[in-house]
Amino acid sequence: MAERVKGILQDLEKGHISVPKALGLLKDFPYEDMGFAKVDNHRSLRRGFPEVIFGEGKTPEQIIKIAKRIIAHDGILLATRVGQDVYRALKKQCPGVKYEPKARAIYFRRSAPPRKTGTVAVITAGTADLPVAEEARVTLELMGNDVEMLCDVGVAGLHRILDNKDVLEKAGVIIVIAGMEGALASVVSGLVSKPVIAVPTSVGYGASFGGLAALLAMMNSCSPGVSVVNIDNGFGAGYFASLINT
Amino acid sequence: MAERVKGILQDLEKGHISVPKALGLLKDFPYEDMGFAKVDNHRSLRRGFPEVIFGEGKTPEQIIKIAKRIIAHDGILLATRVGQDVYRALKKQCPGVKYEPKARAIYFRRSAPPRKTGTVAVITAGTADLPVAEEARVTLELMGNDVEMLCDVGVAGLHRILDNKDVLEKAGVIIVIAGMEGALASVVSGLVSKPVIAVPTSVGYGASFGGLAALLAMMNSCSPGVSVVNIDNGFGAGYFASLINT
Amino acid sequence: MAERVKGILQDLEKGHISVPKALGLLKDFPYEDMGFAKVDNHRSLRRGFPEVIFGEGKTPEQIIKIAKRIIAHDGILLATRVGQDVYRALKKQCPGVKYEPKARAIYFRRSAPPRKTGTVAVITAGTADLPVAEEARVTLELMGNDVEMLCDVGVAGLHRILDNKDVLEKAGVIIVIAGMEGALASVVSGLVSKPVIAVPTSVGYGASFGGLAALLAMMNSCSPGVSVVNIDNGFGAGYFASLINT
Amino acid sequence: MAERVKGILQDLEKGHISVPKALGLLKDFPYEDMGFAKVDNHRSLRRGFPEVIFGEGKTPEQIIKIAKRIIAHDGILLATRVGQDVYRALKKQCPGVKYEPKARAIYFRRSAPPRKTGTVAVITAGTADLPVAEEARVTLELMGNDVEMLCDVGVAGLHRILDNKDVLEKAGVIIVIAGMEGALASVVSGLVSKPVIAVPTSVGYGASFGGLAALLAMMNSCSPGVSVVNIDNGFGAGYFASLINT
Amino acid sequence: MAERVKGILQDLEKGHISVPKALGLLKDFPYEDMGFAKVDNHRSLRRGFPEVIFGEGKTPEQIIKIAKRIIAHDGILLATRVGQDVYRALKKQCPGVKYEPKARAIYFRRSAPPRKTGTVAVITAGTADLPVAEEARVTLELMGNDVEMLCDVGVAGLHRILDNKDVLEKAGVIIVIAGMEGALASVVSGLVSKPVIAVPTSVGYGASFGGLAALLAMMNSCSPGVSVVNIDNGFGAGYFASLINT
Amino acid sequence: MAERVKGILQDLEKGHISVPKALGLLKDFPYEDMGFAKVDNHRSLRRGFPEVIFGEGKTPEQIIKIAKRIIAHDGILLATRVGQDVYRALKKQCPGVKYEPKARAIYFRRSAPPRKTGTVAVITAGTADLPVAEEARVTLELMGNDVEMLCDVGVAGLHRILDNKDVLEKAGVIIVIAGMEGALASVVSGLVSKPVIAVPTSVGYGASFGGLAALLAMMNSCSPGVSVVNIDNGFGAGYFASLINT
Amino acid sequence: MAERVKGILQDLEKGHISVPKALGLLKDFPYEDMGFAKVDNHRSLRRGFPEVIFGEGKTPEQIIKIAKRIIAHDGILLATRVGQDVYRALKKQCPGVKYEPKARAIYFRRSAPPRKTGTVAVITAGTADLPVAEEARVTLELMGNDVEMLCDVGVAGLHRILDNKDVLEKAGVIIVIAGMEGALASVVSGLVSKPVIAVPTSVGYGASFGGLAALLAMMNSCSPGVSVVNIDNGFGAGYFASLINT
Amino acid sequence: MAERVKGILQDLEKGHISVPKALGLLKDFPYEDMGFAKVDNHRSLRRGFPEVIFGEGKTPEQIIKIAKRIIAHDGILLATRVGQDVYRALKKQCPGVKYEPKARAIYFRRSAPPRKTGTVAVITAGTADLPVAEEARVTLELMGNDVEMLCDVGVAGLHRILDNKDVLEKAGVIIVIAGMEGALASVVSGLVSKPVIAVPTSVGYGASFGGLAALLAMMNSCSPGVSVVNIDNGFGAGYFASLINT
Repeated sequence: MAERVKGILQDLEKGHISVPKALGLLKDFPYEDMGFAKVDNHRSLRRGFPEVIFGEGKTPEQIIKIAKRIIAHDGILLATRVGQDVYRALKKQCPGVKYEPKARAIYFRRSAPPRKTGTVAVITAGTADLPVAEEARVTLELMGNDVEMLCDVGVAGLHRILDNKDVLEKAGVIIVIAGMEGALASVVSGLVSKPVIAVPTSVGYGASFGGLAALLAMMNSCSPGVSVVNIDNGFGAGYFASLINT
Repeated sequence: MAERVKGILQDLEKGHISVPKALGLLKDFPYEDMGFAKVDNHRSLRRGFPEVIFGEGKTPEQIIKIAKRIIAHDGILLATRVGQDVYRALKKQCPGVKYEPKARAIYFRRSAPPRKTGTVAVITAGTADLPVAEEARVTLELMGNDVEMLCDVGVAGLHRILDNKDVLEKAGVIIVIAGMEGALASVVSGLVSKPVIAVPTSVGYGASFGGLAALLAMMNSCSPGVSVVNIDNGFGAGYFASLINT
Repeated sequence: MAERVKGILQDLEKGHISVPKALGLLKDFPYEDMGFAKVDNHRSLRRGFPEVIFGEGKTPEQIIKIAKRIIAHDGILLATRVGQDVYRALKKQCPGVKYEPKARAIYFRRSAPPRKTGTVAVITAGTADLPVAEEARVTLELMGNDVEMLCDVGVAGLHRILDNKDVLEKAGVIIVIAGMEGALASVVSGLVSKPVIAVPTSVGYGASFGGLAALLAMMNSCSPGVSVVNIDNGFGAGYFASLINT
Repeated sequence: MAERVKGILQDLEKGHISVPKALGLLKDFPYEDMGFAKVDNHRSLRRGFPEVIFGEGKTPEQIIKIAKRIIAHDGILLATRVGQDVYRALKKQCPGVKYEPKARAIYFRRSAPPRKTGTVAVITAGTADLPVAEEARVTLELMGNDVEMLCDVGVAGLHRILDNKDVLEKAGVIIVIAGMEGALASVVSGLVSKPVIAVPTSVGYGASFGGLAALLAMMNSCSPGVSVVNIDNGFGAGYFASLINT
Repeated sequence: MAERVKGILQDLEKGHISVPKALGLLKDFPYEDMGFAKVDNHRSLRRGFPEVIFGEGKTPEQIIKIAKRIIAHDGILLATRVGQDVYRALKKQCPGVKYEPKARAIYFRRSAPPRKTGTVAVITAGTADLPVAEEARVTLELMGNDVEMLCDVGVAGLHRILDNKDVLEKAGVIIVIAGMEGALASVVSGLVSKPVIAVPTSVGYGASFGGLAALLAMMNSCSPGVSVVNIDNGFGAGYFASLINT
Repeated sequence: MAERVKGILQDLEKGHISVPKALGLLKDFPYEDMGFAKVDNHRSLRRGFPEVIFGEGKTPEQIIKIAKRIIAHDGILLATRVGQDVYRALKKQCPGVKYEPKARAIYFRRSAPPRKTGTVAVITAGTADLPVAEEARVTLELMGNDVEMLCDVGVAGLHRILDNKDVLEKAGVIIVIAGMEGALASVVSGLVSKPVIAVPTSVGYGASFGGLAALLAMMNSCSPGVSVVNIDNGFGAGYFASLINT
Repeated sequence: MAERVKGILQDLEKGHISVPKALGLLKDFPYEDMGFAKVDNHRSLRRGFPEVIFGEGKTPEQIIKIAKRIIAHDGILLATRVGQDVYRALKKQCPGVKYEPKARAIYFRRSAPPRKTGTVAVITAGTADLPVAEEARVTLELMGNDVEMLCDVGVAGLHRILDNKDVLEKAGVIIVIAGMEGALASVVSGLVSKPVIAVPTSVGYGASFGGLAALLAMMNSCSPGVSVVNIDNGFGAGYFASLINT
Repeated sequence: MAERVKGILQDLEKGHISVPKALGLLKDFPYEDMGFAKVDNHRSLRRGFPEVIFGEGKTPEQIIKIAKRIIAHDGILLATRVGQDVYRALKKQCPGVKYEPKARAIYFRRSAPPRKTGTVAVITAGTADLPVAEEARVTLELMGNDVEMLCDVGVAGLHRILDNKDVLEKAGVIIVIAGMEGALASVVSGLVSKPVIAVPTSVGYGASFGGLAALLAMMNSCSPGVSVVNIDNGFGAGYFASLINT
């Protein structure tokens, strides 16, 4: 998009368009009104990554329409919490899009992202936390991060995480994904000096209250260096990790 | 209905009916007992709008029976949270009724409502808030208000709302509909001197707890001039807005 | 009631009734009515330990009156959550009672309890959990258990608990006391095969909600072998541990 | 597994393998990485029972893969909250596994467990609490405990539990399973000197809030000697009971 | 007050006053406007007992002013949650008023109430529940009921309540007052066929959450025949019991 | 067990045992053990009505088995929250049973119950509260009460309840059933001197949180004379009302 | 302030100041940086009323410093939740300020506000709700509204509000302030066609949970035309009412 | 401390001490047992910053004793939530310590920390959030970060934050501190591409529920790039920000 902005400005400089005209063209950039949605087109300029589609509560038609606009503008797409049917319908119109079924995410990147040098470790307490981890991984890779996954290393068998301390130490940023009592976040944070992004998950039953138990536990971590995102929010953790990964 | 009341009183004056008879007739007016429901027939006199049918928890038969009575009495109908099947069944008996599928609302108005001069702006933070917005819009239009919709202008891309400040300034009343963190209500209220009716929605996941996060946020708005209705209550917001729109 | 007991015993002495008869009569004497309280005198027979006075919400006069009866009957006293003033007043009348200020507990035991062979490890995550630990310790020692305290070994510095694995392994029962995120219970339970009694504490702030975060975390422990008592309930943990200590 | 460890050490002693080789072999033991899961193979050594599979949130393929590894290593399997379809699929590959439909648990034990001498009483307040009780029973029997079931003895008909006091008195440990107001735990604990493990269940409606009412009630038991596990956690109660049963 | 109404009507009959005058006088009766409070003077006619003053949040001056009006009109006064200072100040102006310090209630009755034939049993689980019980007792006696108190009979020592079954059976109505897990309500209700009014109290700590645990437990009683009033609401329980006592 | 009862009665008839002896023997027969359920057979003696089957969480087989025993013993049956399929299966074996589909209740009574003289008014705020009202009505009629239903008289149209004050005044006991904000309970209680049993319902959405809003509102009624049962608990309200109806 | 802006622009027009100078002066207007606070000086232009000081959590020194700035700029001051000591200290420096002790509010207005034609009715359910009502009244009067207070008209004595229907009907906007069950909002809204702003208060105890019960009730009002502000937020209700009063 | 470790190893190399001796010395390093606390001495090695003392729940004596050990070992001290009295007592023994009264924090650093190149922006929504901001600032400066404070820029006056976009853009990391509805976090995150660490505060009243409203809002931020720490946890935010600041 930066190219198109530059073009308008050059047109103005060369006298091909007037200032009011230029202003009008630039003002049209920020978002496009699609009736039901205003695609935030200059977010990639402002924030380094385009708008991400959160699929829940949107009709397949809405998702596809928004996705096509974002692809056209930015050449990058991430849509989370969408079913395989939406993917198939979109693929017919944008053949390059891919789908990660565990994460239920559609993604696309026209050109390779600039690579970051640090690695992000994505760690889960249990096997059932995998879909959230996959959502984080897809997000991270789309943003140019190397990812190291370490799954099922919950504190019930502490040696599993202790034996993998090298993974923790090599990483620049650590994402810890855990349901139930969410203790893994505190434990990992206590072992190393890396920032830990904790993701509570809704894995559990009874008094886990849909992830509330893990969320509160992570919020109250006795080990400094932990911050928390929403329950099951793999995307948010991946996005935040990419912002702080160098 | 006012006409029918007047008629009874004139009949009494002219001696066509006795006082006890008149009393009886008038007493029958307030509501009609249908066994399972007491239709509040004189609500339109008392409150300027007839009883509105909340469809959830009622059988299709009950909805249709109540709807027909309200139409017969008042010539206006609004039924929210009803499926298309109920609409089709009712349409056979009352051909004039209409259906707004996004809002899941049946509505009808025999004669055009008296027009209000002010406009009500209906603003949503995201695309997934649309069904609630549509419920508000249907309510507002049925009550004679001009509505301006502004969708998907959440605070993640602040320029979307800032670029539309003229919509806010032209409106006499503003309805802000938002899920997740519900920040849009405070932001809009801080920009203008119009009353803001905030509608938290159940859009979100995890720690949104079905709209509780947005509800609490709106309740605690740091900007005065905000009041709040129930989660997903587009009808209530529209009704309240119409009361204060001039 | 004392009179009636005396009468029965005299009847027995004089041979008017047999021993089994007397036993039956005495077993019927369950409690003494003091107007405001019914001291459960045969609880020590039934449950191996007399009634324990929970001081909160009782007047000093009530506590002292009940305490004297229990001492008279059973020769053992435990009163928790009582101030030093109550202790001083009681001491004047029962010189043998002792006070543990950290636990705010009055206790007394006329004769030494039968010793258990196993040790109970009482472990705290932080220094601020000490008062709860002391309440557990007093309870345990009064019931004849050897106690090993291990304080301030929370998961923020995991080596502190790992270096003390021998304490965990020597113990027959482990009490884990932790506020904030309460992760220590899961971690300890994962290390050894001993039953872990978890005590959430109200230590923390903000989203700890008075110990709720730790309680939920402990309830959801991913490591089996953990059961939980009420927030700050050092007495309950000690009592339960003594029941299962051999 | 102990056999295999011993073999490695003997190989070392006899000079068949070097120390680094031995170290490597032993280090591989603790868990096996299956990509999505790290099976905690030395848990049976460390904790006396292998890892238990919690079926919720895992795919049938994942459950079966993990189950086969655990069986191969430890000769014992317990998988809870799994459907009959998973059982049938697993049975084809491991013919010895059994299924308890009321508990929705798959279990297997190659050789008989060492028998405990004490009995564990499993008591339910109502008939609807049975599935949780069955989960506890399967767990207990797999761990070598004699179980006595006592069902539907809730406090609405107090004589039902009073008439069965001998069951309570014979038992070494008591599990009380109750939904609704969960009062049975306090009542049972007040009757005898045995440790009571309370399991709140989600049986109830309205203000039971999915078992929260029973959980809070059990946490606040006025009778000492009660500790609590998670809502519907029959497995956890059975496991804890087995740890303290002698 | 009935006397004064009758007087007005007789004055009208005898022609001493006109109909409009009578209407005006009668219309003034319902309540008196005191600026900050509208004393509901004809409540004693309508509901059999005058308005009761809830002292919390009112200034001493307000309480005294309202109390004097109610005494003047009805000859009966009940004011709950008021301190001894308010009582002393009021006593100077209305010497007949009495104070029950345990209940923190001021009360007064000019003439003896009509006696009810049934007895109301007021039962508490513990000694700390006494203030709530006293509030119920004062209310009941003021309304003409015989009260039998039975204190400290919680389920931790079940024989205490079983031994007093005659008190339960003699009573026409039973009030059960309990904090902590509130199990006593279910147990008492299961024993007899009398209606049980359950009062949760804020006695407890930690996960009792100010009485919430007992409230939820009582709401979910597995024994039919229990209904519940607000936490610590001894007055409400007494009032309700009096309504149903015959 | 029937055989044993028969034997005792025959012994009595033949003069082998005395009446007091027989009574004693019979009173010992508390319940029958059916493996999964202990039918509380002497509850009808103890509490005036047999055990009621709460259908949720029980299999059709269990319900039918228990139902047949209760019918055999007591000649009265009430089973709530059961589907029509269970009813049809039971009807084949017990042709006399009836089904109320709105309440989802099976009921049966061999002989007419002793009639009470007072009437119980069952009042609902809205049409969607009807199923709960029907559950109350079935319960009340089965227990010999005259019931007067008054539906859809919520406070949004206050005249609907004011015009029916005679129904309130004629009744001996009033059941008020309301969801949403539950205000009807306070309003009805303020109008008359009858005891009001309030039933919060799960009717509503958003911040009604499944009936919690109405429950809390009813608990906090500013009008004394209200007590509350569980959300949607029409049976409990009916049962309690019958206990206090004369 | 409008005068001062105009002055700067005229100075610019007349060439007394340069454009950059003018820009600088204008830019300084929006807010002044006081280190700890940024006084939002152009809020009165933007929103029709200057920033209001919420006293809680601010030191007296901070309040006084901010107050003086706002007075200097706008000639209007409202500071809520401040003690009499702050008032006295401020009065020494700004003699014109006034204090309303019931509302704990300091206020000041240099010139009379433009009068609105409509009246705002401020209605409380009980005497203890008065402080919140006074906060609303002070706010309303400062903003030029006529206020009619109607206190202690809760639904326990419905005639109190019914007899004052003329107050409701004369008002253009109605504020309903109620604690406990908060039913008054629905009742008032059902009687008239005016917008009702509901203010839940923390008046109550036990299950009122600091005003949560009233808040939820008002949110769930069965009568449309109600919107809600925060618990005890008299200022917010007054401010919102003034916005919609004509 | 690194120096001391090196010394021991050199002593070993030179043969001044034996291996067992060296082992013993090193093993003593990790933490020192002070009876009530285990100071985690090698945390500064492991995590780059020594243990921080959380003052709440600790006695002044305990705080001072721990503080002295940490100073002796690491030459750096941070103690939060401690009163001025503790500071004064500590200062007598460690004259170099300083106190920040707004943050209630004691701090000390023997040698200047290595400087980071990036700036951390600490932004508050209101003046009452200052104490939390000061706690973050003290933490950050002690860890070598440049801090830019921006206070009282809440969304009620959006221009305050928009006019300071340069502060946001210059910063490498942004801490947003807000109570009430916590909307500022989403707004700031939407404006720039920097990671935002959100700190909910307990500023507010009523439905803010001690900061819960802000916490939930921040958790549900519609703008990615936000992660959250505990309510009022200025230290945790500062610590996390320092970890990710470069």
